[in-house]
Formats: sequence, structure tokens, C-alpha cells
Amino acid sequence: MAVYTQLANEEIAALLTREYGLGALRFAVGIAQGVENSNYLVAVDGPDGGEQKFILTLYEKRVHREDVPFFLGLMQHLAQHGVSCPLPVARKDGALVGDVAGKAAALVTFLEGKSRTRLENVHCASVGGALAGLHAGVADYTGKRANALSLSGWQALFEKIETRVDEIQPGLRQMIAHELGYLQEHWPHDLPRGIIHADLFPDNVFFIDDAVSGVIDFYFACEDFFAYDLAITINSWCFEASREFNRTKSSLLVKNYQKKRPLSEAEIAALPTLMRGSALRFLLTRAHDLLFHEKSALVTPKDPLEYAVKLRFHQQVKNAAEYGL
Amino acid sequence: MAVYTQLANEEIAALLTREYGLGALRFAVGIAQGVENSNYLVAVDGPDGGEQKFILTLYEKRVHREDVPFFLGLMQHLAQHGVSCPLPVARKDGALVGDVAGKAAALVTFLEGKSRTRLENVHCASVGGALAGLHAGVADYTGKRANALSLSGWQALFEKIETRVDEIQPGLRQMIAHELGYLQEHWPHDLPRGIIHADLFPDNVFFIDDAVSGVIDFYFACEDFFAYDLAITINSWCFEASREFNRTKSSLLVKNYQKKRPLSEAEIAALPTLMRGSALRFLLTRAHDLLFHEKSALVTPKDPLEYAVKLRFHQQVKNAAEYGL
Repeated sequence: MAVYTQLANEEIAALLTREYGLGALRFAVGIAQGVENSNYLVAVDGPDGGEQKFILTLYEKRVHREDVPFFLGLMQHLAQHGVSCPLPVARKDGALVGDVAGKAAALVTFLEGKSRTRLENVHCASVGGALAGLHAGVADYTGKRANALSLSGWQALFEKIETRVDEIQPGLRQMIAHELGYLQEHWPHDLPRGIIHADLFPDNVFFIDDAVSGVIDFYFACEDFFAYDLAITINSWCFEASREFNRTKSSLLVKNYQKKRPLSEAEIAALPTLMRGSALRFLLTRAHDLLFHEKSALVTPKDPLEYAVKLRFHQQVKNAAEYGL
Repeated sequence: MAVYTQLANEEIAALLTREYGLGALRFAVGIAQGVENSNYLVAVDGPDGGEQKFILTLYEKRVHREDVPFFLGLMQHLAQHGVSCPLPVARKDGALVGDVAGKAAALVTFLEGKSRTRLENVHCASVGGALAGLHAGVADYTGKRANALSLSGWQALFEKIETRVDEIQPGLRQMIAHELGYLQEHWPHDLPRGIIHADLFPDNVFFIDDAVSGVIDFYFACEDFFAYDLAITINSWCFEASREFNRTKSSLLVKNYQKKRPLSEAEIAALPTLMRGSALRFLLTRAHDLLFHEKSALVTPKDPLEYAVKLRFHQQVKNAAEYGL
């Protein structure tokens, strides 16, 4: 939840006409959802007299300025390759990234549709297909961005929170240390890789009726294993609110994924390890954010223990069949 | 800045169709601006296939549930009497107030237009006319709500912050105590009264081009002197960012007000006292909010000292001529 940077309507109006050549501002509202950046929904007079809506994003400290062209280029590439996602709008000077209030800023088209919180089988199936579509769509994107939140990043995060993580739940420190050791030993090295979304949580996927209508929030996208992206997605879509794993949902998600991009034997064999790694990644970042968030920040930290439960589940999984494969 | 109550899209969609008989939800975004309530901008399929926009408000603890019908009735009355403001939408059961997530909730039409932060003479003139329009529009509204933030309320607020207010600025305690004594003695008793907006700050007034297009946020509306409402408005519109009083703006504001509702001699004579009272009111509430706000709340407290400066200015004013009357 965040509008960190407050912009006056006059600033937004001047920006849109002067830098983007758009029509007069009709309204601008700061959006409360989202934890990383400041977002405004803006509407302007369109060329046909109708209303055009965009999202104006100011990148706050968690997004590195040098990464912004990668993210925007990725969205542009995906949109041009048939993936429904926000399309960055070029400024009059041709650039996708501008400077607003001292921050990197971009304007993207407003994507119609809405995310779901009550996830039924049909939504899990649909998101599996959408993820495979993303993995196909990135094929010839030339942008590069390493994954700072993979094994070595997890180790560094753990060292930062090690002495305090048991404040959240006694025993977490030992559990994480043990898991890091396991993953160091078992993490795969040679799976198919490319640009992954890396954060395809339900709030980043829009539906119209029960079909995926678009994907947003590419600000964790990076290079890594495609099957790791699949593991992140299963982790965030296939557990019930009761924290029980739902194998039917996972089976449907993977089945629809495989219709567009079949998994190799090595990917299937690695899936339980990738599930563990992805659970640990969100356990670590959430624990970090809970322990270190500024009390005055406008962000409600997410519950790290949700991912401790998921990790414990995956630790007792023997093979990918338990995920419905 | 606030969405205190998080609603899932499914809940919003079901509410709009089931309770209000509206079309399918197109999108819903939590709005970051506003400090009192949780607000969502929602868009649905309109009967003609176009998009209809509304604001869904959940009233948080600062608004008393029993006051909500007064506020909504007031907006309905004003809208029906030619004042441009959000119009409450009746539920299928006829009620304007519903219950959402255990809170009083209402749906009002989305008002086009946008507030200004760079206030020029023309805006101050225009808001003077709009305020007089409000005071004419409330004439036969039968709702009642006492002003909890008048003299006795200020005294109570002061007692709550008295021991800590000098943490904000040394000397504030003495200044406020002295001012309360002055106002006890000089506060007028028999000026024309009715329902006032009581919070007509620039962020609650929308403009299209340079003319007021609408007024929002009636959640401080109450019964009090019309000229006190004028004083609140002058205080919030006629000081420069440098905190200098701008007599030209004030003169234009009052002149346009008087075109629709001429002030009596008693009102003009009382204006300097009303300016002091209104400055003290915002000094007190802002000081209180700064000292007592929950650190975890999603609200950035406003600066109380802005109103200490304004109060000091008014303390040295001899008569209403200094406001350009």
C-alpha cells in the first residue's frame, strides 16, 4: 500500500501533456495497492473525445533505476508478442523512462480486468497457460537482469536477519539454516532458463470472467530457470487459505502450462527442490520486511509464516507426482 | 492516505450487483488519498454498455456510524438543489447506508474534475462563490449534527494534549491556553447559522479549467455559523506556501461569496475572531493527530505549526478590513 511520492494534479497534468503529448487530465488518483512503487491511475481526454486511462509509476528505492529500462523493455516486448500486459508509452523524446520528482517514472496503459482472491480450479488452470505464454513471449528479448534473490541472495538475506528471525517464531533460524544447506547441495544447475516473471502472485494476474486477461508487475523479472517461475506460481496459487496444499489445482496449473511448454524430465525431477527454494525465498524476504520495515512506512508487511508452512510441506514431498504431475 | 479495510474484488463485485443492482465490475482500485475513510474507485458496465464510475466508502472509526445518514442525506439534498457534489446511490432496499466488512458503507457517484494545489486568485474567487452556493443549498435540509469541534471541543482537545504539545514547539501550550481564554470571552453567539462544510480545503474542491466543478468530503459537516465556514475557507485558501497572508485572494474570495450571500455587519465584525478560532481548531486537531497517531497507521500527519503561524497572524489583525473586506 503506497503512494510514497505525492504529486499535485498540476504536475501530473503538465507531465502528460508536455512530455507525452497526451490530452487534458480528467482525474488522477493515487493507488493504495502495491508495495514497491508509487502508482497513479490517470485519465485524460483521448483523441476521439473519449477517456484514456494510464498508470503513472514512480519507482521508489526498492527498484534500482538502472533496472527500469529492462522492465519497461520487457513489457513492451511481451505486449508486442501477444502477451496482454501494460504497454509502456513513449515520451515525446522517444524515451520510455522519464524523471518525475527526482525519481525514474514511466507511463503504461491501464489494463482492464481484475485480480481474484478466491482461486478456483479454473483460475489455476488458466494461470498455468498464461505463465507458459510469458515464457514463450520472452524468447528473443535481449534485456539482461540477474536474479539477486537466488541462492547466494538468500544466504545474504539470512545473515541479515539471522539473529532476529526467531522473534517471529522460535525455531525459524535453525529451519532456514538447515534448508539453505540442503539447497546449496541440491539446487539444479542446468535447467532451461530465460527471463521469468518471478512474482506471479494472484494480485498480479487479471481475469475477465474466468480467463486470464492480463499480467502486471514485472518488477521482479530476471533471468532464472523457467521451472523456478512455475514453482513460485504453484506456491502462490495452489495452497488453500487453510494452508493445505491442493494437488488438483497444482495438477491443472502444470497441465495447462505443459500444453504450451512441456517440461523436461530434469525439470520435473527438480520441481520439489524448486518448490522448496521458492518457499524459502518468500519466507526470507517477508521475514526481512517484517523485521526491518520502517514503522512509519505505508506498507503492511506480509506474513512470513505462510511460507514457513509451505516450506515444511515441500520438505516432506518425495517427488513431483505429489504435485499432480 | 488510507485503505484501512482491504476488500477483495469479488466482494466489491458481489456488493455492487447484489445490493445496488449495478452491472459487472470492470475494475476497483483502493485510493491512497484521504485520511478518514477507506475509499475505492470502482467502475462497472453501465446500462448503455459504457463505463460508470463510483466511489465506495467504508467509514472508519473517526466517522461515527450514527452520523453517516446525516452526511449522505446532506450530499443528496445538495445534489438535488443544484450543488455539484457526489450523489449517494440507494441500495436495492432503498437505504443509502449499508454494511460492508462490519463497517458502515456507502456508494456515491464519481465526481469528474480535479483539485488544485497551486491556488491562483481566480481559484480563490471561484471557491468563495461555491461556498456561498453551499450555504444557500443547505437552507431547508432537516438533518442535524452539532459541531463537536467548537469552543468546548477545543478546550477538551487542549486538555488531552496540554502536557505534550510543547514537544512540537516550545511555547505552544501557553499560546493555546491564552487563545482559548480570548475566544471564551469574544466568541460570537448570534450570527446566522446552518449546516456548514467545515473542511473546505483545496483538496476537497474540484475544478474544471479555473471554475469550481464540485465539492467533496462532507464528513465534518455540522451546524455552526456560516461565517465560521468562511473563516475556515479563507484560512486554507488565502495563505501562500511562504505562510504570508494574501489579502488580494481573501478579498476576492469574500467578494464572490457576498455576491450570493451578503455578510451582515455582525458577521464582518466577528470575522477576525472567527479566523482565530478556525486557526486554533486546526492547530489543535493537527497537534493531537501528530502526538497520538498510531505509528503503524497509513496516515501522514499534517503540520500543526502551519496553523500556529496563521493564528499568530490573526492575533495581530485589528479588523476585517485587513482581510480585504
